[in-house]
Amino acid sequence: MAAETGWSLNPQLAKDTTPVGDLALCRVVAMNAAGFPWLILVPRRDGAVEISDLGDEAHRLMDEIVAVGAGLKSVVRCDKLNVGAIGNVVPQLHVHVIARRFDDPLWPKPIWGVPLAPADAAEFAGFVAAVRSRLGL
Amino acid sequence: MAAETGWSLNPQLAKDTTPVGDLALCRVVAMNAAGFPWLILVPRRDGAVEISDLGDEAHRLMDEIVAVGAGLKSVVRCDKLNVGAIGNVVPQLHVHVIARRFDDPLWPKPIWGVPLAPADAAEFAGFVAAVRSRLGL
Repeated sequence: MAAETGWSLNPQLAKDTTPVGDLALCRVVAMNAAGFPWLILVPRRDGAVEISDLGDEAHRLMDEIVAVGAGLKSVVRCDKLNVGAIGNVVPQLHVHVIARRFDDPLWPKPIWGVPLAPADAAEFAGFVAAVRSRLGL
Repeated sequence: MAAETGWSLNPQLAKDTTPVGDLALCRVVAMNAAGFPWLILVPRRDGAVEISDLGDEAHRLMDEIVAVGAGLKSVVRCDKLNVGAIGNVVPQLHVHVIARRFDDPLWPKPIWGVPLAPADAAEFAGFVAAVRSRLGL
């Protein structure tokens, strides 16, 4: 099982996101994309690339995916959660949890790989604060 | 928690895939897309749409995602697994587990939403048989 010692957030993820806070296993960060409430869970385990690298802690990852999804649904309108562990560009294991709406600009297409404009800064800050509060972070 | 009674594979998933077999929680089916070894796990729980609908069985889903990913990696060349629960088109809860390669035709883009040609029929049948054998199905 990978250790927390030595872990740090991948520089590309750090550049692209805003910190929300730390759960027991994962750092939660937010992507700023207008119209798409988008959180990313990053297990603080050095060298983890695939979910299997977490060993027994994969269950905790699942618990945190569910908790973050519930938190997201409670602060924004959401018709469907999109959950994905892709990692083709940033190899450090991370899981996207995105709130999708039937009337969002890309529905029903997946969001990954599509260039997106950032949201209004105040609106995004409000979203991050609401998620932080809801998750107790 | 959702029940197995009343569950049946969504007709669109049934049309688009080939059965591989049943694990304790999920039916495993294979998508036929040339160059992309692609399995889908469908929890046999009536009405499940989001992972949270599984309740405590979300841990079992995670175990089966890891097991199917390991099985996939053992039968094909794979540089990165792509795992996703999207469900924007087919609402029945299902999880994609796809073997990606650095030299596949779409790398590093995600595969979802891209029209793909089917593989050679014999090659696909061989893939399904190999996965079935490896997963003990």
